Amino acid sequence: MYEIGVVYRNIARTDSKIAGELGAFGSATVHEAMGRVGLMKPTLRPIYPGAQVSGNAVTVLLQPGDNWMLHVAAEQIRPGDVVVAAVTSDCTDGFFGELLATSFKARGARALVIEGGCRDVRALTELRFPVWSRAISARGTVKATLGSVNIPVVCGGALVHPGDVIVADDDGVVCVPRGRAAPTLAAASKRQSNEDEKRAKLAAGVLGLDMYGMREPLAAAGLRYIDE
Amino acid sequence: MYEIGVVYRNIARTDSKIAGELGAFGSATVHEAMGRVGLMKPTLRPIYPGAQVSGNAVTVLLQPGDNWMLHVAAEQIRPGDVVVAAVTSDCTDGFFGELLATSFKARGARALVIEGGCRDVRALTELRFPVWSRAISARGTVKATLGSVNIPVVCGGALVHPGDVIVADDDGVVCVPRGRAAPTLAAASKRQSNEDEKRAKLAAGVLGLDMYGMREPLAAAGLRYIDE
Amino acid sequence: MYEIGVVYRNIARTDSKIAGELGAFGSATVHEAMGRVGLMKPTLRPIYPGAQVSGNAVTVLLQPGDNWMLHVAAEQIRPGDVVVAAVTSDCTDGFFGELLATSFKARGARALVIEGGCRDVRALTELRFPVWSRAISARGTVKATLGSVNIPVVCGGALVHPGDVIVADDDGVVCVPRGRAAPTLAAASKRQSNEDEKRAKLAAGVLGLDMYGMREPLAAAGLRYIDE
Amino acid sequence: MYEIGVVYRNIARTDSKIAGELGAFGSATVHEAMGRVGLMKPTLRPIYPGAQVSGNAVTVLLQPGDNWMLHVAAEQIRPGDVVVAAVTSDCTDGFFGELLATSFKARGARALVIEGGCRDVRALTELRFPVWSRAISARGTVKATLGSVNIPVVCGGALVHPGDVIVADDDGVVCVPRGRAAPTLAAASKRQSNEDEKRAKLAAGVLGLDMYGMREPLAAAGLRYIDE
Amino acid sequence: MYEIGVVYRNIARTDSKIAGELGAFGSATVHEAMGRVGLMKPTLRPIYPGAQVSGNAVTVLLQPGDNWMLHVAAEQIRPGDVVVAAVTSDCTDGFFGELLATSFKARGARALVIEGGCRDVRALTELRFPVWSRAISARGTVKATLGSVNIPVVCGGALVHPGDVIVADDDGVVCVPRGRAAPTLAAASKRQSNEDEKRAKLAAGVLGLDMYGMREPLAAAGLRYIDE
Amino acid sequence: MYEIGVVYRNIARTDSKIAGELGAFGSATVHEAMGRVGLMKPTLRPIYPGAQVSGNAVTVLLQPGDNWMLHVAAEQIRPGDVVVAAVTSDCTDGFFGELLATSFKARGARALVIEGGCRDVRALTELRFPVWSRAISARGTVKATLGSVNIPVVCGGALVHPGDVIVADDDGVVCVPRGRAAPTLAAASKRQSNEDEKRAKLAAGVLGLDMYGMREPLAAAGLRYIDE
Repeated sequence: MYEIGVVYRNIARTDSKIAGELGAFGSATVHEAMGRVGLMKPTLRPIYPGAQVSGNAVTVLLQPGDNWMLHVAAEQIRPGDVVVAAVTSDCTDGFFGELLATSFKARGARALVIEGGCRDVRALTELRFPVWSRAISARGTVKATLGSVNIPVVCGGALVHPGDVIVADDDGVVCVPRGRAAPTLAAASKRQSNEDEKRAKLAAGVLGLDMYGMREPLAAAGLRYIDE
Repeated sequence: MYEIGVVYRNIARTDSKIAGELGAFGSATVHEAMGRVGLMKPTLRPIYPGAQVSGNAVTVLLQPGDNWMLHVAAEQIRPGDVVVAAVTSDCTDGFFGELLATSFKARGARALVIEGGCRDVRALTELRFPVWSRAISARGTVKATLGSVNIPVVCGGALVHPGDVIVADDDGVVCVPRGRAAPTLAAASKRQSNEDEKRAKLAAGVLGLDMYGMREPLAAAGLRYIDE
Repeated sequence: MYEIGVVYRNIARTDSKIAGELGAFGSATVHEAMGRVGLMKPTLRPIYPGAQVSGNAVTVLLQPGDNWMLHVAAEQIRPGDVVVAAVTSDCTDGFFGELLATSFKARGARALVIEGGCRDVRALTELRFPVWSRAISARGTVKATLGSVNIPVVCGGALVHPGDVIVADDDGVVCVPRGRAAPTLAAASKRQSNEDEKRAKLAAGVLGLDMYGMREPLAAAGLRYIDE
Repeated sequence: MYEIGVVYRNIARTDSKIAGELGAFGSATVHEAMGRVGLMKPTLRPIYPGAQVSGNAVTVLLQPGDNWMLHVAAEQIRPGDVVVAAVTSDCTDGFFGELLATSFKARGARALVIEGGCRDVRALTELRFPVWSRAISARGTVKATLGSVNIPVVCGGALVHPGDVIVADDDGVVCVPRGRAAPTLAAASKRQSNEDEKRAKLAAGVLGLDMYGMREPLAAAGLRYIDE
Repeated sequence: MYEIGVVYRNIARTDSKIAGELGAFGSATVHEAMGRVGLMKPTLRPIYPGAQVSGNAVTVLLQPGDNWMLHVAAEQIRPGDVVVAAVTSDCTDGFFGELLATSFKARGARALVIEGGCRDVRALTELRFPVWSRAISARGTVKATLGSVNIPVVCGGALVHPGDVIVADDDGVVCVPRGRAAPTLAAASKRQSNEDEKRAKLAAGVLGLDMYGMREPLAAAGLRYIDE
Repeated sequence: MYEIGVVYRNIARTDSKIAGELGAFGSATVHEAMGRVGLMKPTLRPIYPGAQVSGNAVTVLLQPGDNWMLHVAAEQIRPGDVVVAAVTSDCTDGFFGELLATSFKARGARALVIEGGCRDVRALTELRFPVWSRAISARGTVKATLGSVNIPVVCGGALVHPGDVIVADDDGVVCVPRGRAAPTLAAASKRQSNEDEKRAKLAAGVLGLDMYGMREPLAAAGLRYIDE
């Protein structure tokens, strides 16, 4: 499936304004706006709470215990990008730490999403360079085997093409394909305004049962109320 | 085992003063006071540190990927309740987020304990509405299949009846059956006062070996000391 | 493999100055300085972020659901020690809580590393007594079966002898054998100064590809660049 | 929740004819006939393939690493019973092996379901004494702490009362409450005869789409067919 | 990422002769011949040992706890196909059992690969209809929410397009993209003949160290031999 | 902790007669005879049922995704040895397959125990070369980074020195240190003869409660019998 030993340069990216606006909605709203697809597995967790980012995906395919291609990827980063790193087999090693974060940040990257481990989390937290990873591990890696940069990768169970929009926050990481970024933004926007209204009603004590008109379908499905 | 498609209303609850006082002791002390039973599995974790709550259980049985019954449960909440949600098969989806939390809070709920996933954790943290869950996931759910409300449920490996007292904090979640709430409170209270005394001694450098009189039983069990 | 029912007293310890200086480098640097060995599995996590400690290992072998030997270990603690507790079979129970932490702290211990569970995490956080554990659980333990103190133990997959140096922080826990503490310190120190230089270059936008001279070996390995 | 240190004798059992007939349907059919509830988690697996049993539950509550109460339970076994053992915290130790199996078999037990570990699996396979367990482990247990026999227990996430019917096979373990055994048998029987008919049709090439009349609801739900 | 609610008909398939010949090499050889990519995660396991199949992928996207789309997929099966089913979120329910297997077999399917659970494993074993799944569970599913058929899916971490070749055996499941089937077959064939030769030498006692010429590179890497 | 890049030759081994006799007792009995220590974690499972082996440990330390040192180890094997392979970080790749098994077998090895993955399991089953591993995976490995041979390693949480006796069967893998092999054999032998007697009594219907004299200590611990 994967092409090994290649680096695609000058990839097409999603309009950065759209990418930025998608990020403001957060992963849950974007995931709904996508039709509830595109979410990475919840085993990918942020290394510190409160980060919320979005950007164009620069993708990397790593070999287990080997972070060589992250150095190759650094050169392909443009301001506003989010690096997405898959690994060819499960590995919790700390592929990424303070030095690479310094380099990625200098290149303009906003975050890393990696289906492996990460280290130097205190330094990364101080740098405010967020990472979503499967593990935290002090164990470093070698630089011996080729992978690829900017090929389509599967990360956290989601397919990511270079130039797709990545939206990541405390709830997880979602990937919006480049071709669906604009309609997803429109759908997210519509969804959000609905939510503001609903929130106000619910805060005032209105029940979702009434607000969503659920009583009839629940009765039709056979729900019975019993007084104790 | 479970009755599907029913909502029990007007359930008997534990005296709210007892429920509140149990909460002040925390899950570890209450668990000991219960005779070391009633604890949910440690895979249920709080979404933010520092929350400590107690209250009467309103129970919910959910189907995987479906949060319909949480809306039904909202109507059954009374001030001071803690909602406890079991799922009929393992599922990490985000069954609960900001909108439901707004509604639950408006109804007077203090917390949610759910053997599934939760989302909008940043908003929930700002709302100070604590959730103990198995996972955090941006993935939302459908509203298609009935479960039940206020039937006995197994959540996190513990059996919870509606009206039982739930005590939850950073150490986990414990369920105190309604009929044992008063004696458990008495036992917790006694245990606590013992602990204050012990803490002072240990802080002063007294060894547990001496304070608990362990040297003799250890020797009887055959413990040998060897100088290197 | 393990000797059961013994306590070794007056164990040889690593020079405390060396132990302290190793801690300042953190687990990732020390692990690299060791030749990338000696790290415990990443399933051992700190109960609160930001702690960074080092010290001489006092080792404990526990039986599942039984913390008797932690009381025995307390007497063997000297100021600056880190207690390392293995368990003879996987168990997430809360072997350690506020009372033991008070005692350990009074004896001069700096931290606990345990391949089991821990409880009272809010109190431990307030005490600033850090614990690296596999789980957090309110469930307490009995005191019925002997283990040992200050025998070599396997904790988190790493072999730890009493008097080895333990370095623990947000990235994990590494064990430096007593006989390798001094050369590891030298290697870590050298590595660190290199890192400072590299960090400055990378922050200035220099690529690792150039700084590490990777372009040639990558080409030799067959890496191809393709313009889209 | 659990009462510790008690043994209930002379428990009420389900009619053995009903229990036996339920077993013949297997866990999947019985689970459906129950309304898709009562199934234990799929982490409980048989130690060898092909066993299919049913019987009245004799329940046991064990402490981690301690099999004392299995010896107490042996005396309460009557011919045709299935022993169901819960543990107060997660433990993979081998609580049960050849000697206990010999005793259980001599008392007439048909199987063991245990939320812990099991050992001597080769001998148990030769004895044809099936066990559904969470793990296989050579590690034995102590006999030091009381649990209970014939109290309601939560095993594999399912609530089991003594005298409930347990149905176990390669697909898992389901618990049928005593009071629902007869109607569940009727429902299973009806379901089974339907299945025979369906199987014949499907084997002849009829599609489920047509047999179940799914084409219309699928179209109503919006399913679109696209020719490539 | 995924398109929901669509069924692609008349998908392009890989030449059945090539698909069949790839299967004869087994997953390990094919994976190597692909350049060590395309393998599904090892959490997908066969329900019985010894099955070895290959065929064209018919892909299915399922919703958790819902097997509606497997019925839709049945109609798209042609003789020699292997059905590959992804699920939009982790779910161990038994999506597939004897009735569907009867239907799939009648349509000519050779196997199912599913990132969910499977049931009726004894019947499937007797039918010799192999399934690679993440779990075995008696729990059935509902038919309420649309997914899709014959869209590209991520299953077990591997991207599968309809018409790709699936090779599955006791070692796991590998996906060969349609466009790479012929060159992969050639590479596998070459690799295999090399292996026969090597096997004979190794069986005669020749060391891999000598046969592969490893002694020099090992020495160059610094390997030292020490006599005890 | 680990010395990297070394091969110890001519290691001391345990008397092969003792090693063989230990194997006949099986892992559970040997583990008990050791004082219930030395067992590897139950996550190491045999690739086929029914194998029972013992032999002297030849140890290997591997790097993740790299099986180079298994080739180095082959040369150090003597008839009757069992190879024990640890990995420096968690990795499920298939480090070992048919070719290496052919070589190991030609050298006289009886089995492999590996804290990683294994492949070609059908061929290994036909060869009757048993492997205890953490995973089965078709994914092969590279040969790029040094480890070591015949240094002490931690495998499955147990410390193994070269020349220790490994006993492995369906219940798991236990390591008997060379210096304790003779007394462990004596203890196992004594334990076994006791077991034969006990088995006969239990088969005749005698209860463990009576045979082990448990009724009095149970009553002393407070066990109460209640007639329903």
